[in-house]
Amino acid sequence: MEEVAFAQVDRRWNTPERTALVSTVSADGRPNLIAVGWLMRASLTPPVYAIGINRRSQSGRNIAATGEFVIAIPGVDLAPALMYCGTHSGADTDKFAATGLTPQPGRVVRPPLVSQCLANLECRVVATQDIGDHQVFFGEVQASWAGSDPGRPLLVIGAQSGYFQVYEEAGFRLGIVRD
Amino acid sequence: MEEVAFAQVDRRWNTPERTALVSTVSADGRPNLIAVGWLMRASLTPPVYAIGINRRSQSGRNIAATGEFVIAIPGVDLAPALMYCGTHSGADTDKFAATGLTPQPGRVVRPPLVSQCLANLECRVVATQDIGDHQVFFGEVQASWAGSDPGRPLLVIGAQSGYFQVYEEAGFRLGIVRD
Repeated sequence: MEEVAFAQVDRRWNTPERTALVSTVSADGRPNLIAVGWLMRASLTPPVYAIGINRRSQSGRNIAATGEFVIAIPGVDLAPALMYCGTHSGADTDKFAATGLTPQPGRVVRPPLVSQCLANLECRVVATQDIGDHQVFFGEVQASWAGSDPGRPLLVIGAQSGYFQVYEEAGFRLGIVRD
Repeated sequence: MEEVAFAQVDRRWNTPERTALVSTVSADGRPNLIAVGWLMRASLTPPVYAIGINRRSQSGRNIAATGEFVIAIPGVDLAPALMYCGTHSGADTDKFAATGLTPQPGRVVRPPLVSQCLANLECRVVATQDIGDHQVFFGEVQASWAGSDPGRPLLVIGAQSGYFQVYEEAGFRLGIVRD
């Protein structure tokens, strides 16, 4: 065990990573989507998820303003849409229109579900933490939705063997574990 | 898209999940180990990781008392040790002795590195958040260590195909993505 640069450990350990779309609305009700790779469960009971979002993003501003977001879990067919949402700013783009994703009203919160996703979780913010260049929002699950096909949730994958890569852009590889 | 019980989404989406050992010391210097499945990157610059730890654990008390922890990344050979550390309390067990894992002094923080792991990250707490039944500790990476063999980091896996399962206990499956 030798001391090394952090980047060496990061490269070896940063995949596979679950990924999701996060749906939000601005204070005046304009919907937006962002892709997140930094997410984890943060409480069993009640169920809470943490998501990490770049401090300068429109989605972060929306969540800070409304205290609500939806976690939408994409399958393999949504890889290009996920990448689009992760590389464009909602400040000047309607990402639902640009990707063809369909907003569907939830039951509890104002941000829409994403109809084409495998599942959606309506979340209400219970805590926020600024950390370095990101904000972490903790969202308690208020309602859960799923399609009839369980599908295989999309992952951010590495360059290792064992994965079926479905999309790559700007060094990000999206895929699933190979059957 | 139909409204369902949260457990249905949780079952479909809760794997694969990266996992790690977390090394801590009590205020009087007694080392401990815990297994974590809830962890994520929380800032790019500086590099910060978030870990979620059960509120009643000795490891949580140690981190709260010292503000320090080490993330130790296990390979496949450490699956039984990881499971042991996740299912026993450090209040009444010396888990380094029980598992045969070897503590190795770090450079910056007091909790020891785990010599047999693929890599270790020395972290200093920059924020703490109580969420439901867990505490989330945000640790800024102070120093990074790696062994010469990159290995394949252990994952918490699901029952889906595509994984090589190396260990199972109490419903938890540990493994890697199959080559």
